[in-house]
Amino acid sequence: MFAVTEAIGFREVKAEILRRITQGIWPPGSLLPGELALAEEFACARATVNRALRELDEAGLLDRKRKAGTRVRLAPLRQARFEMPIVRLEIERTGARYRYVLIKKELLPAPDWLAARLHLGQGSTALHLLCLHLADGQPWQLEDRWINAQALPQVLDQDFHHEGPNEWLIRAVPYSEVEVSFLAAAAAAEEVTHLGFDPGDPVFRVERMTWWQSVGITHVTLSHRRGHRMTTRY
Amino acid sequence: MFAVTEAIGFREVKAEILRRITQGIWPPGSLLPGELALAEEFACARATVNRALRELDEAGLLDRKRKAGTRVRLAPLRQARFEMPIVRLEIERTGARYRYVLIKKELLPAPDWLAARLHLGQGSTALHLLCLHLADGQPWQLEDRWINAQALPQVLDQDFHHEGPNEWLIRAVPYSEVEVSFLAAAAAAEEVTHLGFDPGDPVFRVERMTWWQSVGITHVTLSHRRGHRMTTRY
Repeated sequence: MFAVTEAIGFREVKAEILRRITQGIWPPGSLLPGELALAEEFACARATVNRALRELDEAGLLDRKRKAGTRVRLAPLRQARFEMPIVRLEIERTGARYRYVLIKKELLPAPDWLAARLHLGQGSTALHLLCLHLADGQPWQLEDRWINAQALPQVLDQDFHHEGPNEWLIRAVPYSEVEVSFLAAAAAAEEVTHLGFDPGDPVFRVERMTWWQSVGITHVTLSHRRGHRMTTRY
Repeated sequence: MFAVTEAIGFREVKAEILRRITQGIWPPGSLLPGELALAEEFACARATVNRALRELDEAGLLDRKRKAGTRVRLAPLRQARFEMPIVRLEIERTGARYRYVLIKKELLPAPDWLAARLHLGQGSTALHLLCLHLADGQPWQLEDRWINAQALPQVLDQDFHHEGPNEWLIRAVPYSEVEVSFLAAAAAAEEVTHLGFDPGDPVFRVERMTWWQSVGITHVTLSHRRGHRMTTRY
């Protein structure tokens, strides 16, 4: 459906282009031959060349302009891509048994910082949840979540004792915009209590906010167990 | 060169497909019409549909299989993409004046942990550099870098007093594989001295290793100033 079977695949084309770039045959700043010329040289479909170029573009090695053609970037853009897995799957992938505990669930007037970030009106309410995700009985991640109860009134019918709010949200609500931050913070009271830190210990936190058509849906702080690293290879 | 000018662009097609997914017209798990059928419906080129589908695939919303066609993912894959900018550009982008200071430069027998990670042989030497990057005179990032001097003998001719090793490496050495980790750590001696932390304060660190054709090239620890967050929106 997406590509005709080729004598030469886009991976081979990509590897050859990468070789020419890294060996300086096509130095930084140089203009690559056009797609048709490359397709002819490699005796493959233009779509194959296109896919190879696209992936090298996404890897930050090329600079593609519709009219000016494709050049080797002077300084490769470096991107790190992290998969943000559902914590249950992340834990199960390690072979451990996943357990979920709802620590707190409360409907509250939205605190000022939350109202400001999610653009809530005056007198808004928000559902606040504190959840612990465990691997083989050991705390793995503490989830401190706020959900916009005006935008998502159906959230009030949810129990959240057996399934965490993240998995429910994924099913129930699409999102159009996400902001993710990674940071180091000194362990606060809830992290001391539920993750076993000493007060002030360094904690790796992920903060995420999602919007759907400009309406803030949820704000979550994910605090990770001691020594957690978020690692990616590419 | 890459797309014919269309009456309807891939952005419109993408938005319409996204609307159908998020409004449940095409629920999770459902099979999308084929590219040709969609191109006919939207009165656009098949390449336009293909690009829209590809971007929704990259956003983790679709599951595309060559033979089985395109389905709406049951649980969207969530990815966070971070640009890893050159620190000079990151600082200059804020409007601040960039300054670079080489604190230490020493050729050392590779320590065991480094030899293990970069796969160095016995008796290998490594260039160790400690560098500080400042924004308007304030410490912004401490760079603790090791470079494989066997793989890169030309590194020994470099001065590194006026330009940091990162920018030199980008010009001099390609890489084929990268591992990046984000973590929180307690401030160590160098971070206390050069970034102004108190001992044990939480520090946000990025660790990165790069290989070129299976040979480890460099290992770097980037320690960020107090309160630094790495944020991305998508």
